[in-house]
Amino acid sequence: MSQTVPTQETLRVEEDVRQPLSPYLPNGTSSMHTTLTYATSLDSAISLQPGAPTILSGPRSKAMTHYLRMKHDAILVGFGTAAADDPGLCCRIAGATLEHQPRPIILDPSGRWNFSADSKVMRLARAGQGKAPWIITALNQPPADRVKLLQELGGRYLRLHVSDHRKGTSQAFNWEDILRCLSQQGIKSVMMEGGATVINDLLSPANAQWVNSVIVTIAPTWLGRGSLVIQPEKTRDERGGLGPAARLKDIRWITLGEDAIVCGRLEQR
Amino acid sequence: MSQTVPTQETLRVEEDVRQPLSPYLPNGTSSMHTTLTYATSLDSAISLQPGAPTILSGPRSKAMTHYLRMKHDAILVGFGTAAADDPGLCCRIAGATLEHQPRPIILDPSGRWNFSADSKVMRLARAGQGKAPWIITALNQPPADRVKLLQELGGRYLRLHVSDHRKGTSQAFNWEDILRCLSQQGIKSVMMEGGATVINDLLSPANAQWVNSVIVTIAPTWLGRGSLVIQPEKTRDERGGLGPAARLKDIRWITLGEDAIVCGRLEQR
Repeated sequence: MSQTVPTQETLRVEEDVRQPLSPYLPNGTSSMHTTLTYATSLDSAISLQPGAPTILSGPRSKAMTHYLRMKHDAILVGFGTAAADDPGLCCRIAGATLEHQPRPIILDPSGRWNFSADSKVMRLARAGQGKAPWIITALNQPPADRVKLLQELGGRYLRLHVSDHRKGTSQAFNWEDILRCLSQQGIKSVMMEGGATVINDLLSPANAQWVNSVIVTIAPTWLGRGSLVIQPEKTRDERGGLGPAARLKDIRWITLGEDAIVCGRLEQR
Repeated sequence: MSQTVPTQETLRVEEDVRQPLSPYLPNGTSSMHTTLTYATSLDSAISLQPGAPTILSGPRSKAMTHYLRMKHDAILVGFGTAAADDPGLCCRIAGATLEHQPRPIILDPSGRWNFSADSKVMRLARAGQGKAPWIITALNQPPADRVKLLQELGGRYLRLHVSDHRKGTSQAFNWEDILRCLSQQGIKSVMMEGGATVINDLLSPANAQWVNSVIVTIAPTWLGRGSLVIQPEKTRDERGGLGPAARLKDIRWITLGEDAIVCGRLEQR
């Protein structure tokens, strides 16, 4: 319980990287801005296998990811990522205060993320190095001890209905509902970071409308068969023919160390 | 039989693209140089489904691919690609003469590529716009009509043994055998273009030694689940743990239109 968070390195992002990213970041208007972002290998893998966090980004693109976190009110991940990676979901950019820290949002409809006071995100909140998470759940009564732990650190549960047509699917909430819920809580920008279930769902044609920008880091490696991969559902034309799942427009490539970053917006179909 | 080849557009590649590519191209020495190259979506797909050729590259990266072809003595593909795509395997760079055309090499151990005088590569050869293919086969006696057709256009069969430990695998020849065979025929550089079977085999740890350069074009699209994908076999460490299949070193990224090209060499393990 009393475990503290070791002092972590701070990261720097220079102006020559900030400038090309700026068209893809929240611009301070009142409407909600969402950014879908992930790091991938050349073979579209985000980790060597489900449940095995894998470092893909080099130091410069990792710093860029932390800069993106500073530019958003919230970071959203699914419960699978929270459980598998025990992520910090904080921003380690040099000079970032608690005010700059994004709010971690965990999608966990049925209470499967088994967090404790020792979960990294909770330790960071206790140390004042990050905000406590908000957990979006469909449970009427989340376990009392978890409610208490969250509340002590300044986090909370947010109740949301699972839409009928999504029952039994891998991502149970409607994105419209999720974003309305967050908007009602004062969140104006969300960085959607993972995992594969969340990313594949957002890249599917029906959900492209909820994504304002996409920023993908590509590392020059192949993780290989059996990895956890990004592969959204294909589109279908009116005759039932198969088409590409998604395509970017307004594209900008940025090279950072050995990695490349592609920024763009999803073409709407 | 008398079908002619329509006059095709010619393509141009400027010096600002030729220059960064040059360290990855054959340098005119006597030893064999191999370049593994393919175009992929962000989700590592090379076509929407097996047997459905899919245009991924934009015009500038397509021109770059044709420039690469001009820089190699031969282009190699598997029989599956020859059958599914009916590819021209020629170079359409402005000013390319027959001398500049690469020799098409088809890996077809058991004679499954059912070509005819109307296959695109044969029509191009007849029109003097490309060289006739060499087909690497394990058959003792390829069908006489095909031998005759090939010979008329200046092509031929090359006999090669299928190595015992590769019998029944998707790529039946040893790369050492293939490259020795081509070297004996005077070929000093080979661009290995596809399909997925050939690429995945070359990216597997045992074969990295036969690849001198890798040049991958990435288009900012996701073809989606069910596509034909590049996903090589993972490595295993001495304790049986899984590791990444392959990684590039000596990396250079080039942006061409909406696409990015990554150039590098495979790390040897």
